[in-house]
Amino acid sequence: MRVRLADLAALVGGELVGDPDAVVSRIGSLQDADGATVAFLAHARYASQLASTQAACVIVSPAMREPAAARGATIICDDPYLAFARLTQWWARQVRPLPAPGAHATAHVEPGAAVHASAAIGPFALIGAGARVEAGAVIEAHCIVGAYAHVGEGTRLKPRVTLSDGCRIGSRGLVHSGAVIGADGFGFAPSQGRWEKIEQLGAVRIGDDVEIGANTCVDRGALEDTVLEDGVKLDNLVQIGHNVRVGAHSAFAGCVGVAGSAKIGRHCTAGGGAIILGHLELVDHVHITAATVVTRSILKPGQYSGAFPFDDNASWEKNAATLRQLYSLRERVRALEKRP
Amino acid sequence: MRVRLADLAALVGGELVGDPDAVVSRIGSLQDADGATVAFLAHARYASQLASTQAACVIVSPAMREPAAARGATIICDDPYLAFARLTQWWARQVRPLPAPGAHATAHVEPGAAVHASAAIGPFALIGAGARVEAGAVIEAHCIVGAYAHVGEGTRLKPRVTLSDGCRIGSRGLVHSGAVIGADGFGFAPSQGRWEKIEQLGAVRIGDDVEIGANTCVDRGALEDTVLEDGVKLDNLVQIGHNVRVGAHSAFAGCVGVAGSAKIGRHCTAGGGAIILGHLELVDHVHITAATVVTRSILKPGQYSGAFPFDDNASWEKNAATLRQLYSLRERVRALEKRP
Amino acid sequence: MRVRLADLAALVGGELVGDPDAVVSRIGSLQDADGATVAFLAHARYASQLASTQAACVIVSPAMREPAAARGATIICDDPYLAFARLTQWWARQVRPLPAPGAHATAHVEPGAAVHASAAIGPFALIGAGARVEAGAVIEAHCIVGAYAHVGEGTRLKPRVTLSDGCRIGSRGLVHSGAVIGADGFGFAPSQGRWEKIEQLGAVRIGDDVEIGANTCVDRGALEDTVLEDGVKLDNLVQIGHNVRVGAHSAFAGCVGVAGSAKIGRHCTAGGGAIILGHLELVDHVHITAATVVTRSILKPGQYSGAFPFDDNASWEKNAATLRQLYSLRERVRALEKRP
Repeated sequence: MRVRLADLAALVGGELVGDPDAVVSRIGSLQDADGATVAFLAHARYASQLASTQAACVIVSPAMREPAAARGATIICDDPYLAFARLTQWWARQVRPLPAPGAHATAHVEPGAAVHASAAIGPFALIGAGARVEAGAVIEAHCIVGAYAHVGEGTRLKPRVTLSDGCRIGSRGLVHSGAVIGADGFGFAPSQGRWEKIEQLGAVRIGDDVEIGANTCVDRGALEDTVLEDGVKLDNLVQIGHNVRVGAHSAFAGCVGVAGSAKIGRHCTAGGGAIILGHLELVDHVHITAATVVTRSILKPGQYSGAFPFDDNASWEKNAATLRQLYSLRERVRALEKRP
Repeated sequence: MRVRLADLAALVGGELVGDPDAVVSRIGSLQDADGATVAFLAHARYASQLASTQAACVIVSPAMREPAAARGATIICDDPYLAFARLTQWWARQVRPLPAPGAHATAHVEPGAAVHASAAIGPFALIGAGARVEAGAVIEAHCIVGAYAHVGEGTRLKPRVTLSDGCRIGSRGLVHSGAVIGADGFGFAPSQGRWEKIEQLGAVRIGDDVEIGANTCVDRGALEDTVLEDGVKLDNLVQIGHNVRVGAHSAFAGCVGVAGSAKIGRHCTAGGGAIILGHLELVDHVHITAATVVTRSILKPGQYSGAFPFDDNASWEKNAATLRQLYSLRERVRALEKRP
Repeated sequence: MRVRLADLAALVGGELVGDPDAVVSRIGSLQDADGATVAFLAHARYASQLASTQAACVIVSPAMREPAAARGATIICDDPYLAFARLTQWWARQVRPLPAPGAHATAHVEPGAAVHASAAIGPFALIGAGARVEAGAVIEAHCIVGAYAHVGEGTRLKPRVTLSDGCRIGSRGLVHSGAVIGADGFGFAPSQGRWEKIEQLGAVRIGDDVEIGANTCVDRGALEDTVLEDGVKLDNLVQIGHNVRVGAHSAFAGCVGVAGSAKIGRHCTAGGGAIILGHLELVDHVHITAATVVTRSILKPGQYSGAFPFDDNASWEKNAATLRQLYSLRERVRALEKRP
């Protein structure tokens, strides 16, 4: 890869200050950049790195125009982080060509599946009866698209994804290896000390522009469907229980668990390891800090937290032991307050 | 699917009040029901929905007979939730026919494997040497049944399950996609700053009527076996360490982790994200609330909890900061109490 | 398997006290041993089991020579636990023969892949274009070795591992079923309420002697690589975010999550379910207790903890409710202290 700065500036819709014919061959961080690197300054807190970076060209916001231009070639645009994102997308398209359309010789497509001629089906992939795979979709090696499942236009299933029978994902989606869409929700009726299975008769419905991480699970609904709306982003090892609804453009980091029938609003986020209990409602624009356990509904937008503050082990032991007597400590304070 | 109410009542062993020849074509919740839906009232707290539901027929307990019959067709039975569970099972059998017996053309069965003629082996599945697959078992696409592994009668492995060499699952089991039964337990001897592998020479032994969720892991034992007794239910992304024993009819929700050699009793439950440390013992009928960390044995049945109460971020920050001084706060209260 | 005690002693480099021609046929714990078992005494706290064990031979440290020899055949060596580890390795080599070299008839090796003649490629495995698989490597059934990926000498990928395009693992590694090496890191630029994908252009680089557990995920880097140094051990269901670096010989138990760009030192450990937030630094020899949430860098070696102490539900409810007023409780104590 070799790109002229003039072409870079055009790609990101920015203004170039510097030699339009200079060339870069990598994208990098300010810190690790060399003389062939285009880097970017996304946050003011990294401004000090501007002076020392070896980058051939730096993408900055208008506010940083002067110091950036003083050190060398610069592309100025309103949102350098967004420009960086778009640049990586363009870059990936150049260095990672899409697989050729058609089904690999080792793939198995059941009779009655409808695979668009422009879709690619990888080695050992399985497309079930009645499934639909739309134009430009890429089903990579070892994927399973179940019977009557549906993969929208341009959606890509990375190797070894399971999209179970009757489940649907919209357009321009991306699902990573090991993800399981549409396993049974966890539903049982207790009966004389045993668990009687409640068959999960719903499915999973996923909107457009959704990304789902590696080994993440989205369960099918019990009666109605589990739903991920447009633009939802799930990281790896996330668990979405049955009949959950995740609102558009919400994003959950790794190891988040959402229990059954929770309703999450739009534009919500949850940090890594957060747990959201079942049957709760979170309104739009709720942000859950990593490792927080959400035990009741949240009806007001904002940031919510609940991790135990870690400490060196000896301090933690003393504080944790006291915590088990906290209620009685409060009673003692009350008694003290009542003293004359 | 079209079912007469008389047939429904017979299926669930209930008494029908209403037209025996009326027909329903879906199962639904009271809230989402339409005129073709059979719904059920499982908990008294949903009784208010009875008046407004559009359901064609509602399954209720004897206590709700009058208000239910007042609104339309009703099936009365002792445990409506259990009836609902059994109805979903019957329903699923109608709409999801089992795959035909025999091995798919793309499956690979090693010489020396014993697969019953009534078992079904899906596309790209692999059955190892010396493995046994009993009558009516269903091994779906991309599954791996290792050498000398054993799958009991009527047990179903959904697509892409690994049952490792020498591991056994009993009858009527169900294992969901991505589950890994029999990976190595995590065992190392420290040696001069390095980790020396302890080969895991045990296996995994699973009883009858066990369900295991998607991407859940059950490790093989170090010397003896890891054991899941009859009727155990594990949700998705659960981790069961080596030499754990889970007692009969215990159930763990998503993202639960149980460390090595823990012994869990019968009829226990753990909510999502709970962690149970290694070498502990939990007696029968212990219930662990979601996200609780169990750090010592529990020798008395009951409900145990330990999640940090979440709060808006500003409140949490103040309380969490104070928590780090809790022990000294107690000392200050003591000093106050000693004042004359 | 039948082994003479003289041969056992030679294998573990110990001194035999007892009949050199006596034979054992299993390895077991002191407690479960029978007359055909070799067992070991690793910790002084199990010394009481020495008198009652039925083992044919016990491996002990020099300090335990007398009581051990008094009860029967004994092998004395400096580190019995290490001897046990080495013995399990030898045992496993006898009872679990390696697969034969060469590619299985159902495997698919892309043109341009370089697979050493002594490597074994299992059923339905896929080796991408430009990939290298070194001498003695074992790629088991259903594995995917991506384009230009690299598997070092003697490394074993258990069934159904994904090693994505361009990712590398060194020599003598072991990766368990369902692990995903090189899925995209979770990176997005916010733009008008939507998430703009940052393509992850880095890869994953893994050193020698690394073990990775079942269904564990190690994400590829955004620009630079994610790195696991030599001797790292990861248990099951661990999440390693993009651009994380894990120092040599560090070990993480099950369900640990490490967020993006965290730098973990050498010889660190983390207990099950611990969460380490992004962009933090942990120096060498930091030990994180299970279920602890690490929210800031740790610059001093030691043990750090932060789990909420669990309790019976009623006690927990009272203490947790009080915890939400902890800051005001401290203010009340302050007010009391100011009283004359």
